[in-house]
Amino acid sequence: MGLTPRQEKIAEMVKTLGPITGEQIAERLNVTRAALRPDLAILVMSGMVEARPKVGYYYTGKNALSLFTEQISRIKVQDVQSVPVVVTVVTSAYDAVVTMFLEDVGSVFVVEPGGILAGVVSRKDALKVAMGGSDLHKMPVKVLMTPVPKIIVTSPDESVLMAAKKIIENEVDSLPVVSPVSQGGNKAQEVVGRLTKTNIARLFVELGEGRGGNTYS
Amino acid sequence: MGLTPRQEKIAEMVKTLGPITGEQIAERLNVTRAALRPDLAILVMSGMVEARPKVGYYYTGKNALSLFTEQISRIKVQDVQSVPVVVTVVTSAYDAVVTMFLEDVGSVFVVEPGGILAGVVSRKDALKVAMGGSDLHKMPVKVLMTPVPKIIVTSPDESVLMAAKKIIENEVDSLPVVSPVSQGGNKAQEVVGRLTKTNIARLFVELGEGRGGNTYS
Repeated sequence: MGLTPRQEKIAEMVKTLGPITGEQIAERLNVTRAALRPDLAILVMSGMVEARPKVGYYYTGKNALSLFTEQISRIKVQDVQSVPVVVTVVTSAYDAVVTMFLEDVGSVFVVEPGGILAGVVSRKDALKVAMGGSDLHKMPVKVLMTPVPKIIVTSPDESVLMAAKKIIENEVDSLPVVSPVSQGGNKAQEVVGRLTKTNIARLFVELGEGRGGNTYS
Repeated sequence: MGLTPRQEKIAEMVKTLGPITGEQIAERLNVTRAALRPDLAILVMSGMVEARPKVGYYYTGKNALSLFTEQISRIKVQDVQSVPVVVTVVTSAYDAVVTMFLEDVGSVFVVEPGGILAGVVSRKDALKVAMGGSDLHKMPVKVLMTPVPKIIVTSPDESVLMAAKKIIENEVDSLPVVSPVSQGGNKAQEVVGRLTKTNIARLFVELGEGRGGNTYS
């Protein structure tokens, strides 16, 4: 955050002695209350220190990154998602893998009529079966895919941060982005996008280069 | 950034009229120079406004994300990298893929004695060959792997931001982290780690949750 030595000193003082009033800090530093104001304003602004009326200043432990945290939680899946690559449930496992190569994606989504999510096929699933010596030509994609109840999904208005946590915690490469629809009275999920680790890595690069602020906020 | 209305007003003034001195701003707002000091300090601190001696304040157009940009560029590959998963050059393609499954990684690195990088095998490479009907048991890993001159690498002290750009631009899932070594007078690269899109997604989550500041700065 680039604090000055005096600001560091004040932060340390608030951390150790807080809650502490501005007058008490001024006294200890042997400066006037007015001289202290800009420094306190910056510490409060940075989120590191908070002011509570009639109590004084206390330490929050937050740093400059808190500002980023706030901004990042506003970026939604729909801001960074990719177009989904889908095959129908009647496809063969072989054709699903060919689609994967043609579109150069790590996973394809298997859909029923109306774009309703039925399953996901990943490179890992396909490689496992191919290594096992099975003939993918004769295998329906339904046998190869991970079926719906086991699939982790996200929605367009979920924060990318939450979706990224799902990807990490469930050790998957991508999440189908779905919208709820009613199908014959039952709840179903229409595939509307694809969120991958590549989307997240690209967002990381954009934010790291300071380009995220214009695009997403 | 949570600027106050007065700070917003000053920022706008600096943007439109800058460079402008503190005295000129104070005069226009009908306040004293001292009363203005905390606001100007915050605007300078945020990076939105810069002060140039004998010239005045001018607008930079930077936002709160600039602080993040600065912090992020200090995070190095070695701060987030994973342990590399390697096989030797005399392995069969089949064993390389089995290693990939046993270790649950998307790519394995092929090394010569001394841990010298010779090649990389990805799930995509393996799936392509398996789909083509080749017998991976009889195929040496050397035939399957992408060989060294074509491999994009990173080093422990490269910034994660630069490494992430390499991953995105070259459309790969991971980079071998290498250190230069001399091998019989020739330059070679020893494999010391593995940087994946998962490492970057995990870092994104940590930063987004405000945990990055303690770990990396």
